Amino acid sequence: MKKILVLNSGSSSLKYQLFNVEGENYDVLAKGVADRIGIHGSFVTLKIGDNKQTKNVELPTHTEAIGEVLNMLLSGPLKSMDELSAVGHRVVHGGEIFKTSAVVNEKVIEEIEQLSELAPLHNPASAAGIRAVKKFLPDIPQVVVFDTAFHQTMEKEAFLYALPKEQYTEHKIRRYGFHGTSHAYVAGKAAELIGKKGKIITCHLGNGASITAVENGKCMDTSMGFTPLAGVVMGTRCGDIDPYIPLYIIKTQNKTPDEVNTLMNKQSGMFGLCGFSDNRDVEARYLQGEPDAVDAMNVYIHTLLRFIGGYIAVLGGVDAIVFTAGVGENGSVVRKMVVERLAYLGIKLNEENNQKRGETIEISTSDSKVRVFVIPTDEELMIAKDTMRLVF
Amino acid sequence: MKKILVLNSGSSSLKYQLFNVEGENYDVLAKGVADRIGIHGSFVTLKIGDNKQTKNVELPTHTEAIGEVLNMLLSGPLKSMDELSAVGHRVVHGGEIFKTSAVVNEKVIEEIEQLSELAPLHNPASAAGIRAVKKFLPDIPQVVVFDTAFHQTMEKEAFLYALPKEQYTEHKIRRYGFHGTSHAYVAGKAAELIGKKGKIITCHLGNGASITAVENGKCMDTSMGFTPLAGVVMGTRCGDIDPYIPLYIIKTQNKTPDEVNTLMNKQSGMFGLCGFSDNRDVEARYLQGEPDAVDAMNVYIHTLLRFIGGYIAVLGGVDAIVFTAGVGENGSVVRKMVVERLAYLGIKLNEENNQKRGETIEISTSDSKVRVFVIPTDEELMIAKDTMRLVF
Repeated sequence: MKKILVLNSGSSSLKYQLFNVEGENYDVLAKGVADRIGIHGSFVTLKIGDNKQTKNVELPTHTEAIGEVLNMLLSGPLKSMDELSAVGHRVVHGGEIFKTSAVVNEKVIEEIEQLSELAPLHNPASAAGIRAVKKFLPDIPQVVVFDTAFHQTMEKEAFLYALPKEQYTEHKIRRYGFHGTSHAYVAGKAAELIGKKGKIITCHLGNGASITAVENGKCMDTSMGFTPLAGVVMGTRCGDIDPYIPLYIIKTQNKTPDEVNTLMNKQSGMFGLCGFSDNRDVEARYLQGEPDAVDAMNVYIHTLLRFIGGYIAVLGGVDAIVFTAGVGENGSVVRKMVVERLAYLGIKLNEENNQKRGETIEISTSDSKVRVFVIPTDEELMIAKDTMRLVF
Repeated sequence: MKKILVLNSGSSSLKYQLFNVEGENYDVLAKGVADRIGIHGSFVTLKIGDNKQTKNVELPTHTEAIGEVLNMLLSGPLKSMDELSAVGHRVVHGGEIFKTSAVVNEKVIEEIEQLSELAPLHNPASAAGIRAVKKFLPDIPQVVVFDTAFHQTMEKEAFLYALPKEQYTEHKIRRYGFHGTSHAYVAGKAAELIGKKGKIITCHLGNGASITAVENGKCMDTSMGFTPLAGVVMGTRCGDIDPYIPLYIIKTQNKTPDEVNTLMNKQSGMFGLCGFSDNRDVEARYLQGEPDAVDAMNVYIHTLLRFIGGYIAVLGGVDAIVFTAGVGENGSVVRKMVVERLAYLGIKLNEENNQKRGETIEISTSDSKVRVFVIPTDEELMIAKDTMRLVF
C-alpha cells in the first residue's frame, strides 16, 4: 500500500489529489485546491468524500501553498508525512526534451525552468511546486508528467510548420500539442474497449480543447500547436485562424501584440461568438434557437468535423472516436451534432446512451462501422500511475 | 462572332488574353503580359501561337500598360478597336458585395475600390485597369469576375471565425476564400465527368494553393481565409499555423508586424522548409532523397491530407477529387503521394494516367470508389464566358 500525492500547479493555483494505491486499485483519499496564490484572498480546500473544508490563509508563493496543503492533509488523510511514498506533478511543457514522464532531479528541474520561454505562465509554477515539495520533504521521490510528452511521437510531417527552417531549429517553433496525458489515458481505455490498439481519434473537449489522431498507441497528429491557442474552437480561444488576422488587427485596430493575444485567448471562441464560454449555457441557448448561440454551435461543430475528418485521412481510416473532458463528457447536444454528421462513415448515434452521464459508454449503435465512446478522463490517475511505475 | 479581351491586373503587371468566340467555341487569338508597371525596365509581350514579340516601353501606370496592350493587339490580332465586343476583368476581392460576376458601372468600380482595404495590392490595380479601359474604349461593356465570388455560398458555420463577433460585423474579418474562378471551373468540369453535381473536392495547387469542398455546385468550405495566406502549405506561404506564432515572433525576435507578414508570405512554405518554392525543384530533390526536400514534401502532403479529409467530413462523403493548377496539373509525385494515402477510401492510382500531362484525365483506376481527376484550369476562359453571358 502506497500513498501518492498528485500536484497540478497553475500560475496562481495548485490542485492536488491524494491516492491510496493497492496493487491495481487507485483510490482518491482526498483532493482540493490552493487558490489565489500570490493574490489577496487566497485559500486552501480539502475534500474527503462529500465533506469539504476551506481554510483562508495567505499564500504568497507556491511554497506556502504546498506547506498548507501538506498541513491540511495531516489534519485527517495522513497521520504523518512518512506515509507519503511519492509525489507526481503535472507539467505543461516538456518541449522536445521530455518524451516520457521522468523522475525529478536537479537537472530535470532546471530543464523545466529552461522551457519556461515556451510556457511562461505554467512551467515556472511547476518548477516552484517541485522545489517546494523538495524543501518540505527532501527525500521523497518526485515524478513529472508532461502535457506534451504523448505527442512527441509525431513525425516531422505533422509537427513541422512550413516556416523558415530556423524558426524550428533555432527558435523551437513547432507543433507540440497539449492535453497529452488525457489523450493517452482515453486512447488507452478505448483500445481496451475495441480489443486492439488500432486507429483512434480522441476529442478532449473542455474549456480548452484538442483532438488527437492515435495509431497503435502513438500520437500521429494533434490539433493544438506551438501553444494551446491553436486547433479547434474553444470556450474563449479562437483555435486556428488565418495567421494574417492577428497582424491585421494590430495594424488596423491600434492594438498591441499582447492585446491581440488576450483577444484571441480570452475573448474569442464560443464566448466571442455568442457571449457564453460554458457549453451548458451555449447548448441551452442553442436549443432555444438563440441566433448567436446557433451560429456559435454550428461553427464549433464544423471545426470539430474538419479535424476529425482530417485525422481520418492522416490515419488512413478510423476504428474508434472518443469524447472526453467537460464538453466531451457532458455535452450531449455537441456529441449528437457531430455524430450525426459522421453518418457517412456508417456511424449511428445510440440516442439513449448519449443521454447518460458520468460513465464510460458507447454512444454508437452496435451496427455502426466505427465505434464512438464517451470516456471520462482522469489525468490525475494517469499521473499517479506514472509516478508508481517510475518510482517503484 | 465576338472578340473578348480578358485582363488580369496585378499590382505591377497586367496579363491579357484575346478570345474569338463563335457559339460555344472560345479560341485564344493572342495573349501576353505588360510587366514591371511603375518600375524601371517595363515591357509588353504579345504571343500569337508560338510567335512571341516583346516591346520595351515605359509603363508608369496601368493606364499606359493597357494603352500599349491595345496598341500591340492592333499590330496584328485586331484591325480596329471596333472589333472588340467586351472586356472581362479578374478582380481578387469582391468582399460580401459581389456574390457573382457583374457588369461594370461607376458604382461597381467604387465598390471594388472600397474593398481595397481587404486586398490592398490587388483591388486598386483592378480598378485602375477598368478605368483605363473606360478611357480608351468609353463605350465597351466591361465585366468583373471575382476570385471570392464562388465562395460566397459558404454558410456561417464555414466562414465565421471564432473571434469576438464585432471582428466580423464591424471589421469584416471572415473567411472569404480565393481562386474561386478556378475552383468553379474544375468543379463544373468534374461534375460533367461524373454525370452529377455531387460532392467534389477541388485542389487548386499552384504557387498559391487552396482546396475547396463543393456540393451540388456550391462552395461549402475552402482553405484560404481572410487572406490568401491561410490554408494549405504553398510555395512561399505558410498556410495555417498557430495564430500565436506571428505574435511570438514579434515579441521574441524583434520583428515588426510587416516583417512577420513578409516572413509568412514570402519566406515560408516549401521555400522556407527546403529552399525551393517551385514544385519541380522540390519533387526532383525529393526523389533524390535530399533531407530538407523530403521533410518539405512530407509536410506538404500531410497538410493536403488534413484538408481533403476534413472536407470529406464537411461534405459527408466525396464523389470526386480534382487536382488543378501548376502543381496539381504537373506534380505527378505530389498526386501519387496524396492518392496513395487515400487508399482507405477505396481509391487506387492509375500510374500510367498519372504520368500524362496537359490534358483532362482520370488518375484513379476504374474500380476506385472515388474518382480522381487532373483537370487543367482555365480562369481566363471562365472570365470570357462570364463576360459573354452577362453582356450578350
